[in-house]
Amino acid sequence: MKLVIKELYADAKKFADKEVTLSGWVRNNRGQKEFGFIDFHDGSFFKSVQVVYESSKLDNFKDVQKIRVGSSIEVKGNLVLTPNAKQPFEIKANEIVLLGDSPEDYPIQPKRHSREFLREVAHLRPRTNLFQAVFRLRSVAAFAVHDFFQKRGFIYTNTPLITGNDGEGAGQMFSVTTLPLNNIPKNEDGSVKYEDDFFGKETHLTVTGQLEGEAFAMAFRNIYTFGPTFRAENSNTQRHASEFWMIEPEMAFADLNENMKVAEAMVKHVIKYVYEQLPEEMEFFNQFVDTGLKMRLDNVLNKDFVRITHDEAINILINSKKKFQNLPKHGEDLATEHEKYLTEEHFDAPVFVTNWPKDIKAFYMKLNEDGKTVAAMDLLVPGSGELIGGSQREENTERLLARMKEMNVPTEALDWYVDLRRYGGCVHSGFGMGFERLIMYLTGVENIRDVIPFPRTPKNCDF
Amino acid sequence: MKLVIKELYADAKKFADKEVTLSGWVRNNRGQKEFGFIDFHDGSFFKSVQVVYESSKLDNFKDVQKIRVGSSIEVKGNLVLTPNAKQPFEIKANEIVLLGDSPEDYPIQPKRHSREFLREVAHLRPRTNLFQAVFRLRSVAAFAVHDFFQKRGFIYTNTPLITGNDGEGAGQMFSVTTLPLNNIPKNEDGSVKYEDDFFGKETHLTVTGQLEGEAFAMAFRNIYTFGPTFRAENSNTQRHASEFWMIEPEMAFADLNENMKVAEAMVKHVIKYVYEQLPEEMEFFNQFVDTGLKMRLDNVLNKDFVRITHDEAINILINSKKKFQNLPKHGEDLATEHEKYLTEEHFDAPVFVTNWPKDIKAFYMKLNEDGKTVAAMDLLVPGSGELIGGSQREENTERLLARMKEMNVPTEALDWYVDLRRYGGCVHSGFGMGFERLIMYLTGVENIRDVIPFPRTPKNCDF
Repeated sequence: MKLVIKELYADAKKFADKEVTLSGWVRNNRGQKEFGFIDFHDGSFFKSVQVVYESSKLDNFKDVQKIRVGSSIEVKGNLVLTPNAKQPFEIKANEIVLLGDSPEDYPIQPKRHSREFLREVAHLRPRTNLFQAVFRLRSVAAFAVHDFFQKRGFIYTNTPLITGNDGEGAGQMFSVTTLPLNNIPKNEDGSVKYEDDFFGKETHLTVTGQLEGEAFAMAFRNIYTFGPTFRAENSNTQRHASEFWMIEPEMAFADLNENMKVAEAMVKHVIKYVYEQLPEEMEFFNQFVDTGLKMRLDNVLNKDFVRITHDEAINILINSKKKFQNLPKHGEDLATEHEKYLTEEHFDAPVFVTNWPKDIKAFYMKLNEDGKTVAAMDLLVPGSGELIGGSQREENTERLLARMKEMNVPTEALDWYVDLRRYGGCVHSGFGMGFERLIMYLTGVENIRDVIPFPRTPKNCDF
Repeated sequence: MKLVIKELYADAKKFADKEVTLSGWVRNNRGQKEFGFIDFHDGSFFKSVQVVYESSKLDNFKDVQKIRVGSSIEVKGNLVLTPNAKQPFEIKANEIVLLGDSPEDYPIQPKRHSREFLREVAHLRPRTNLFQAVFRLRSVAAFAVHDFFQKRGFIYTNTPLITGNDGEGAGQMFSVTTLPLNNIPKNEDGSVKYEDDFFGKETHLTVTGQLEGEAFAMAFRNIYTFGPTFRAENSNTQRHASEFWMIEPEMAFADLNENMKVAEAMVKHVIKYVYEQLPEEMEFFNQFVDTGLKMRLDNVLNKDFVRITHDEAINILINSKKKFQNLPKHGEDLATEHEKYLTEEHFDAPVFVTNWPKDIKAFYMKLNEDGKTVAAMDLLVPGSGELIGGSQREENTERLLARMKEMNVPTEALDWYVDLRRYGGCVHSGFGMGFERLIMYLTGVENIRDVIPFPRTPKNCDF
């Protein structure tokens, strides 16, 4: 009976003393004189299985002893329950066939490798425990996100990646072109002859799907995007990648409060879901990656998220008498140390900070009646800082146009976006969450390069 | 009680004679002397609701009469069951508030608009019945795909969009750069100075996630990708877009037969799922888009997919005595008319064609023992042609390298890909399905531009 390890762990008793056939990879092979042990993994489950083989049973015992780490094999053997051992069962091999050899210099050996080294072999690192856990969690968390929104009737909307909008207002952009870079056609005035380019105009990789998402929210009420976005910023930090996935829900007839309600419910749903689906992985992260992880996530799960205005936040910081390197000031942005203080020390809970000074926020955010702040919200979480940023959108045509002019956003190319106000506009809101930031938060892994299968960062586009 | 239309249709009796509050958009407003009817839609459900308003009940009756198509409104009213009418209930308004006006020149009027025109207002077209149905189905079908693979333990893998591989072998590519196009830095020999570019090398938008997907299959056994891919081909057809979404599962220890089994099960699962979830939309497509749709999909659901070799296919075509414009020949590709004949006339069922001549297929496909064909499969479906293409992958290092050399695929940049054979390689298979092709098949919509929210095609990158 061909099976995978996950099925065996799900109900080992069902297979007790029966012969099973498994295929997978050798993580370790410790041959003794008359018998040996293979640490066997098949990718279906976080845990591996011990395969015991004996010279008395295998014709090819000597060859099996020599099977190297990383090789692929097929094993036929009897499942034997081992209630007193660390693992609940093992496989007593009747037959072991080498399918694909692995040389002695196989880079993934049964020892601790540095994460820096593993990034250099990103095509092999998913074979390690850490990356098995990280990328399985990434998959399950992605499904949790879809599940959350689909059950609430949100429409998954695939907004475009290549965009002609150059004023999305969220960061520097990559150019996309089919013009030959070594011989760019030019107009007489020396400018690039974009009419020869594939789209007949200048195009970039998008930094957000929000604007197009709003168009769909004005038709479907509740929508969400979940796709790649890009930043051409030359920032080499642990938290920035040039290509990453974003989740951007957008809701018609929803104000900032409703927006925060959905954000809070979504974060809690995903945490609950990965706890339920991946207890082994979560235990591993908590033991080996970040010993404060479960406590922190439990804290998020069990508390109501705090809601304070930016003004209140600044007051709390000023009154704290704490010595910050950056002085907290009304009308200015929060520094990382401020975020940390608010969410970790003062509240010890996730905190929504709302009503931000308009000058440090994007053009599309709804201007509050004070004329100074916008109906924006940032979600700060203990141990990580900003996880989500969102806002109510400016639904008033005139005010939106005025803000675009003030902030030098080209109005012509975004005329369609203004249309969404002209034609039956309404109060609406949305937020964005970097998916990798969420994965870092759920796993305790500190470098964004370690939660993306093949990360792209400045000067790095391997694989 | 604030509700959405979907909730009312789900259980109208529960709300009978109760006051409900709805917010949404006016699709039509027919004012009479003492009363009027609003065709009211809120995006939550395919069907709209009739709102009846009377001068005796509304203080602002005269203003309500003037509310134009496209406007957003809030309605408070009593739900009244109408068992003898076309719609099962209507709303007798107690209060109607205009939230957002819409001018007389609002482009989406209650009449038939051509699909060409609607493409020009792609930001508004989701407000029409057709695009409500198409894009809700797109969302639900996407979830069905995730659901299918997640339940089978496949790991959702986000492969990179920006790639340094220039030999993925699936089509022409877009360049990605941050170099200033009007002033590209050059080396002394006149070549582009890529070391100044963002990634320090030449980079493109990917045409497939398969190669990276294989790396993850060699660790997780079963994985799938579901993300955007790009083609810079200048082909203006109904079936080609420059940016589209692909689903690419990859399975270790799976041969071509297993591959076909999964493909068949996936297609059937998605059809079943959208039938269950979207009966109203499917009925609409069948009535107004393609009257053969349901019959065709039922046929797919209920039949076992046929499996024939390419050689057998050619023999069937030759023996058919049918006059084809392109003569069917052993060793050559199938033309559209051949595909049509096989799947619609000869078998009247979906058909897997396997074992294709190696010269017309990609470098990574497994060479069969005959040395002439590869273990590839195309799935042809009645009414559409090719829906899925896949293969067993060449797992033998030497044969893969030989094929790469024969086909001028650069081996150095793909050394990591060859590693997957060097280090515990095994029999493995996978396939690719263009998501938009699937949506066209499920809806009967014939132009790919009408199943992508904001399509990108040659010379077209609006919104």
